[in-house]
Amino acid sequence: MTLTDATPTITNDTITNTADVSLPPATGRALAEALDGPFHATKQRWRDELDADDVVRDPSLDLAGARAWTLERIQRLSARNFVTAGFPAAVGGTGTSAESVANFEMMAMGDLSLTIKSGVQHGLFGGAIANLGNEWHHETFLPRVIDCSLLGCFAMTELGHGSDVQSVETTITWIPETGEYEVDSPTPTARKAYIGNAGADGRMAAVFGQLYVDGENQGVHTILVPIRAEDGSALAGVDCGDQGHKGGLLGVDNGTIAFDHVRVGREMLLDRFGGVGEDGVYHSDIESKNARFFTMLGTLVRGRICVGGGAASSCRRALSIATRYSLQRTQFRKPGLGEEVTLLDYQAHQRKLLPNIARAYAYGFAQNDLALELQAVLDLNASDQRDEARSRELESRAAGMKALLTRWANDTIQVCREACGGQGYLSGNGITLARQDADVFATFEGDNTVLNQLVAKALLLDYRKAWGEMDLRGTAQATAKMAVGAVRETSALALVNRLGERVGSRTSERELLTTREWQQQMFAFREEHALAGLAARMRKAAKLPKDEQFEAINRVQTHMLFVARANTEHRVLEAFIAGIKATKDAKAATVLSELCDLYALSSIEADAAWFMEHNRISPARSKSITQGVDTLCRELRPHALALVEGMGVPHQWLQADCLK
Amino acid sequence: MTLTDATPTITNDTITNTADVSLPPATGRALAEALDGPFHATKQRWRDELDADDVVRDPSLDLAGARAWTLERIQRLSARNFVTAGFPAAVGGTGTSAESVANFEMMAMGDLSLTIKSGVQHGLFGGAIANLGNEWHHETFLPRVIDCSLLGCFAMTELGHGSDVQSVETTITWIPETGEYEVDSPTPTARKAYIGNAGADGRMAAVFGQLYVDGENQGVHTILVPIRAEDGSALAGVDCGDQGHKGGLLGVDNGTIAFDHVRVGREMLLDRFGGVGEDGVYHSDIESKNARFFTMLGTLVRGRICVGGGAASSCRRALSIATRYSLQRTQFRKPGLGEEVTLLDYQAHQRKLLPNIARAYAYGFAQNDLALELQAVLDLNASDQRDEARSRELESRAAGMKALLTRWANDTIQVCREACGGQGYLSGNGITLARQDADVFATFEGDNTVLNQLVAKALLLDYRKAWGEMDLRGTAQATAKMAVGAVRETSALALVNRLGERVGSRTSERELLTTREWQQQMFAFREEHALAGLAARMRKAAKLPKDEQFEAINRVQTHMLFVARANTEHRVLEAFIAGIKATKDAKAATVLSELCDLYALSSIEADAAWFMEHNRISPARSKSITQGVDTLCRELRPHALALVEGMGVPHQWLQADCLK
Repeated sequence: MTLTDATPTITNDTITNTADVSLPPATGRALAEALDGPFHATKQRWRDELDADDVVRDPSLDLAGARAWTLERIQRLSARNFVTAGFPAAVGGTGTSAESVANFEMMAMGDLSLTIKSGVQHGLFGGAIANLGNEWHHETFLPRVIDCSLLGCFAMTELGHGSDVQSVETTITWIPETGEYEVDSPTPTARKAYIGNAGADGRMAAVFGQLYVDGENQGVHTILVPIRAEDGSALAGVDCGDQGHKGGLLGVDNGTIAFDHVRVGREMLLDRFGGVGEDGVYHSDIESKNARFFTMLGTLVRGRICVGGGAASSCRRALSIATRYSLQRTQFRKPGLGEEVTLLDYQAHQRKLLPNIARAYAYGFAQNDLALELQAVLDLNASDQRDEARSRELESRAAGMKALLTRWANDTIQVCREACGGQGYLSGNGITLARQDADVFATFEGDNTVLNQLVAKALLLDYRKAWGEMDLRGTAQATAKMAVGAVRETSALALVNRLGERVGSRTSERELLTTREWQQQMFAFREEHALAGLAARMRKAAKLPKDEQFEAINRVQTHMLFVARANTEHRVLEAFIAGIKATKDAKAATVLSELCDLYALSSIEADAAWFMEHNRISPARSKSITQGVDTLCRELRPHALALVEGMGVPHQWLQADCLK
Repeated sequence: MTLTDATPTITNDTITNTADVSLPPATGRALAEALDGPFHATKQRWRDELDADDVVRDPSLDLAGARAWTLERIQRLSARNFVTAGFPAAVGGTGTSAESVANFEMMAMGDLSLTIKSGVQHGLFGGAIANLGNEWHHETFLPRVIDCSLLGCFAMTELGHGSDVQSVETTITWIPETGEYEVDSPTPTARKAYIGNAGADGRMAAVFGQLYVDGENQGVHTILVPIRAEDGSALAGVDCGDQGHKGGLLGVDNGTIAFDHVRVGREMLLDRFGGVGEDGVYHSDIESKNARFFTMLGTLVRGRICVGGGAASSCRRALSIATRYSLQRTQFRKPGLGEEVTLLDYQAHQRKLLPNIARAYAYGFAQNDLALELQAVLDLNASDQRDEARSRELESRAAGMKALLTRWANDTIQVCREACGGQGYLSGNGITLARQDADVFATFEGDNTVLNQLVAKALLLDYRKAWGEMDLRGTAQATAKMAVGAVRETSALALVNRLGERVGSRTSERELLTTREWQQQMFAFREEHALAGLAARMRKAAKLPKDEQFEAINRVQTHMLFVARANTEHRVLEAFIAGIKATKDAKAATVLSELCDLYALSSIEADAAWFMEHNRISPARSKSITQGVDTLCRELRPHALALVEGMGVPHQWLQADCLK
């Protein structure tokens, strides 16, 4: 018995050298255009107009140097209208919110400190004013936010509460006597922490706190509070701390802020969803405190979408460098002292890079969809056709994508670092800096573990709506639904049979694994089956005595995380398929189709144990899926350069001393 | 159908709170003593005598500051005899080579730059002189190597050849006219690169190059070449480059060296295994050039053992910080606004940390064994009872352990970073620096991918010896051996039956999974079966025409990597079991036994797909293994503090602002 015996194999019997069938440069460009999708013009402008000096940081800059460089560069980009999308045109905005996501993604191919500094200033601080404020706030502050003459903070996270925003301790208390709000940090753990722009540059902060009016808590609201004078000294009652050196993002001045009974005028509350009126009484269109909180937070979803996209961009840059290096670097000779072998010709090296390149494409198409959906929801909300359900679904999708993309980016940039050997560790290479900078993307803008639980909870809610109270009848229905999966499986086999191949023969196994319908069914089954199981376990937990419920729910936590990932991966596959359909260039579409196979099979391979545990694949099929990934890697290897070109990282930004 | 249905479950029906059954501090100390094993006295000295100022670096130091700090500290440690083990007593050595590994591991709990700087100076440069030189070299250079008054480089790697040492291009040419050697870098890619101490501090280098005598290549040899004058200026013909800023290890001055026909005296060749005698003729006790190369390289195996151990130490430090943090940090409330939940009470958080703590113990016991075996081999070689086979086996074990431990350390330190949220990203935490410094351990001192192939090749060689030429008879034998595996399985079930439990009942499934014999059989099967399969595939490849062999062998590369890991993990399990037997404290032995279960089950869980593919576990058992890991995490959680204490990281070195 070997790893391969008794397995329908999809490899060819004869070994052929496919290294000489690479695609023409035009295909690389067509791939980039396909991957850019609706944002091609926006993204191409960055590639055409900006060089390394504009967006690529010297990794050896120390803290002070990195901060100075970063501040100067966001001012430069702002002046050239590269980061002005997403703001109202009336105050100087120059594009949609979806385009601002595209801009964020391009900037992240240059430098992540720059990206996050702009994200804090334009996305979070500016976004809070734009989304939570009224027209006076827009007119008064946004022009100076856009041109960086007013640098600001997004003061949400506290030392005591990061992920659990609803529990922040900062208070915003209405003082009827003077018509002011008083902002206070009542405990040491109420101190705002990890706040970008708070370490040095920020002059104002959008502060999240519990609003108290006449002793009643109206939930979390946001208020603008000046924190530093023009000369940089802290204002009275404001205590700013510099969090200094970090694991990366040295260009971003993260810091802490504590407030000691600081008073600001009534007009400073960002009161789009609620605030004290001129009558001294609290008003809000949204009655439920909970609903109000989630509506406010929901408007900030763009930040999460940007973070996932930015991490993915940085990962594409690392993949571009590592793959190009693997095409020029040789090591060891073929047996009998033949020529030295190019790194990417080694199976292990192909395995490191090519499935991740496939993911780079898959996630890119899904991210485009997400940005378009963001715009659609924003447009609906602006046109008074607010769709709460669609808003909630967008947030859930954003959470799932952020978790998936940042996890992948962290892991893959590290793979790229190692794939370059010692070269990858030198700062002249550019990968090692990306590794350090992208690291925190996994835990900021929502910790990934928490975000995936949000996704699962949203899915459970939908599931319960669809399946009712999950009584015996519900369970029967769920079982019936599972049976449908089995029927589909049969039809997929029938499909292969219709293709005139013998099932079990070498060719037909490959036909099956690369049949899009079969792949879709596998992804759907993974999501639906895991969700149904989760729902059943949750229902069981709900029947326990109150004091045992937490522990029972706690025991399904890893199951929840699995469901969330399965859901997001399924959406990704569907987005990839749609992206291929929209691709006009025939060669590009063909290679994208192979990449989609590689993405699908390597995703199934990663969960092979789960699929076998649920009797969805046999041990023999599991082996043939692994062989399928190997084969696709080998077949795509000759196209590596075109695939890299297609990821769209500007040549002039690559910052890789190791590349000849 | 859910994740759990139709599965023999090993969870209890009633949910109990086990948070109040933590172990006494004495058990933590007993665990540390057990894990230190034969090196307890050596390691305890570090904990008792050194404080943070001696070994913990300020992460915000810039390149120049980090280098200055590191250099000063290795001089300090050297003066206090903390890094003098492993050298001959005659020149100032103070302990065995095995103890020098223990010292390296302790230093790595403080700072990795310090560790690597000492590793370069004492381990590599000093080790080359000690192992490849004669008594004159020892007496002349080692005292100054030990006290750091002569700082030196280990100039092996070149820009063109890292992993493939046998292909280095540097030449060492015998000049009979003057009785000198001429050292030269004939091409740009012959430049030595990534060399520690070469960037600034080194005054001499142990240079690896092809020795030419009378036009004949005698293979790679090592020669001492002065590179800088006392004042730090490069000597004539020597071109030193500073590789400057890197992804980590800022305290180590890596650099490049190129030689332009530099002459040194005959006595400078480290000629223990070969060199030109006073008669002007090349002499060596080892006739085969290949054997000579591997014998020389073999003496340097300690460096590889140190690197694995050092990475594991750094990982234990990160686990200590993250676990302590998870015991004090709360986030979110139990349903119904109950008390906030401690992070380590969440299942997902337990899953992140506890299986890795189990690995920290498992790898510690295996590393102790490896250090003892190193000493045994060195003692044999010194006593003229040189055992080539045992030397080769030691090298293979060292390669496998280095790859396994550095991979685990890289991945796990990252998990720890994220488990601390934003706190983990601040440099005041100490984890983020460890992450950056440990990174390169995966690719230096042998790239992990290359090392694992060495392991697999050595296993194949042994396999072929044991099974002959793998003809039809051999295959039949191999098949018979596999059948033995099945018999063992039956006997394991019988074992459980003897325990009086009904097979298939809840308790008996747990009995089986925590039966040591069953775990050993699973690890043995994984190794043996994968190796047998690999051997068969290699045999098939060998029968192909010459020009197809490379590609055929290339296609089993990932299979080779799997075999190597399976082999090393199997050794680890056996070492863990032996370590438990040697543990005197009963409470410590009991908790170690549970940790061993967790290690074994999580290792099997990680390869669950493989075990199912090879029909060694059923889908139902795969699910119950996952549940077993969950249960063990839950049961070990109350002991978390004792487990952390037992990892032996000195409190005073923790450098974690986040810990109260």
